[in-house]
Amino acid sequence: MAPEGSAVRLDGKLAASELIERLRAEVARLPYVPRLTFVRVGDDPASASYVRSKERLAGRAGVASQSFELPADVSEAELLGLIARLNADDEVDGILVQLPLPPAIDPRRVLDAIDPAKDVDGLHPRNVGLLWSGRDGLVPATPLGVVELLDRYGVGTEGKEAVIVGRSELVGKPLAALLLRRNATVTLAHSRTTDLGAVTRRADILVVAAGSPRLVTPPMVKPGAAVLDVGLTRVDGRIVGDVDPAVASVAGWLTPMPGGTGPMTVVMVIVNTLTAARMRRAA
Amino acid sequence: MAPEGSAVRLDGKLAASELIERLRAEVARLPYVPRLTFVRVGDDPASASYVRSKERLAGRAGVASQSFELPADVSEAELLGLIARLNADDEVDGILVQLPLPPAIDPRRVLDAIDPAKDVDGLHPRNVGLLWSGRDGLVPATPLGVVELLDRYGVGTEGKEAVIVGRSELVGKPLAALLLRRNATVTLAHSRTTDLGAVTRRADILVVAAGSPRLVTPPMVKPGAAVLDVGLTRVDGRIVGDVDPAVASVAGWLTPMPGGTGPMTVVMVIVNTLTAARMRRAA
Repeated sequence: MAPEGSAVRLDGKLAASELIERLRAEVARLPYVPRLTFVRVGDDPASASYVRSKERLAGRAGVASQSFELPADVSEAELLGLIARLNADDEVDGILVQLPLPPAIDPRRVLDAIDPAKDVDGLHPRNVGLLWSGRDGLVPATPLGVVELLDRYGVGTEGKEAVIVGRSELVGKPLAALLLRRNATVTLAHSRTTDLGAVTRRADILVVAAGSPRLVTPPMVKPGAAVLDVGLTRVDGRIVGDVDPAVASVAGWLTPMPGGTGPMTVVMVIVNTLTAARMRRAA
Repeated sequence: MAPEGSAVRLDGKLAASELIERLRAEVARLPYVPRLTFVRVGDDPASASYVRSKERLAGRAGVASQSFELPADVSEAELLGLIARLNADDEVDGILVQLPLPPAIDPRRVLDAIDPAKDVDGLHPRNVGLLWSGRDGLVPATPLGVVELLDRYGVGTEGKEAVIVGRSELVGKPLAALLLRRNATVTLAHSRTTDLGAVTRRADILVVAAGSPRLVTPPMVKPGAAVLDVGLTRVDGRIVGDVDPAVASVAGWLTPMPGGTGPMTVVMVIVNTLTAARMRRAA
């Protein structure tokens, strides 16, 4: 039980670090080296640094990674050609195309072209469909990381009221499917929700992924709730989450920002690579 | 506005009948006759009568239908062979395999084998994935019928609280996606929900698809709410819905049972056949 007035810190950095050690042990026992491939178009420095941090983490887990960097003026056909080669390459377990892509390229056509068995972002319609059908597939990393944090800190979901703010393909919607599978009563709220505070106050588990800095304030939180902040906005050079840090005085559990859901997302991409390798190489 | 104490009747029978006339006019303008194919295994009389009612309705809309009836001891391979032939047949727009199938046959393998472009039940992972990705595909008929009824009676969804009781692949989950797309705040409740009445009482729009006779009673309904009953259980030879008819004294709108969501479902299978024909024949 959390001490009153001071939420337990859902330490994603620590959890991620321990998880990566566990992964390293698992990978070491495999008869092959799982391989993750990054595809990046253009030279956005934020995207480059994000790829580097994933590559470092893959290395720590013993997962091989390679990175393809294409010029910003690459044609869609060339990009699709690369993806076709990666799909056909039996040594490639995961393919990760960094978004956003340049405006001349249709991101859907590109993402749909990835072999669903190598789709470690979990955005291919087949994987989305498997998730909502309660079947095995690849699930986006951020919701997997949220559920992993809940598990690690013993936050139960069975019969609990879970409220997710934000209905994106990468976070809100797949997380709803995962929490539903774990028998939570799940509400998806969003920018058109009429009285957001009334909705969030019902939540035993509140996940905020709206991209709206400090959207959730203490009066919007049920005392003792688990609050997980997925938002991340750069304001005056600082990273600000969707949850006001003062929520710590009301919540039972709270992710720090940074160091909460973010590090979990990166690890879960590695977990997905391992999952993809196992499913595909066993098939 | 509904008169106090007496909900407006969401007359699915009337709506379905008018919709089928509209469909007939649309079909008559097409340069081809859309074709719906039923596949039935074994001789369950309820299933046979359900297929006949769909065939009749297809006929009224000018949609051709054909029915394959396979013996209960048909092998999975034979059934898959039939589906492969129907997939390849350019004149077939929709394929509907009646469930349940005999225990020796894996229903997933069968449903997955249907060409997603002809999957008028909307259960193929590709269609489920397209729905949750906000893209065009085929959507299960019952949720489409629910939304059609709401539209017809001018029940707005934007910013409203929608609660769905039941999380099936055919009703609850796809309906959540449709109502989310229409900017409702959507809650999925189910058998593990701790305090169902507290959840349903929040609903401006309450859809009950739990298969639990008279589960929802008047104190569980917010005054003025739109209540749609999808449940259907045979009790002592009578059909009983999931909603106590006394809810009419509290709700603003209520589906009768029978004559509410049921007739809409059957028509929406025909609508799906037309949608499938248009998408596939335009492609």
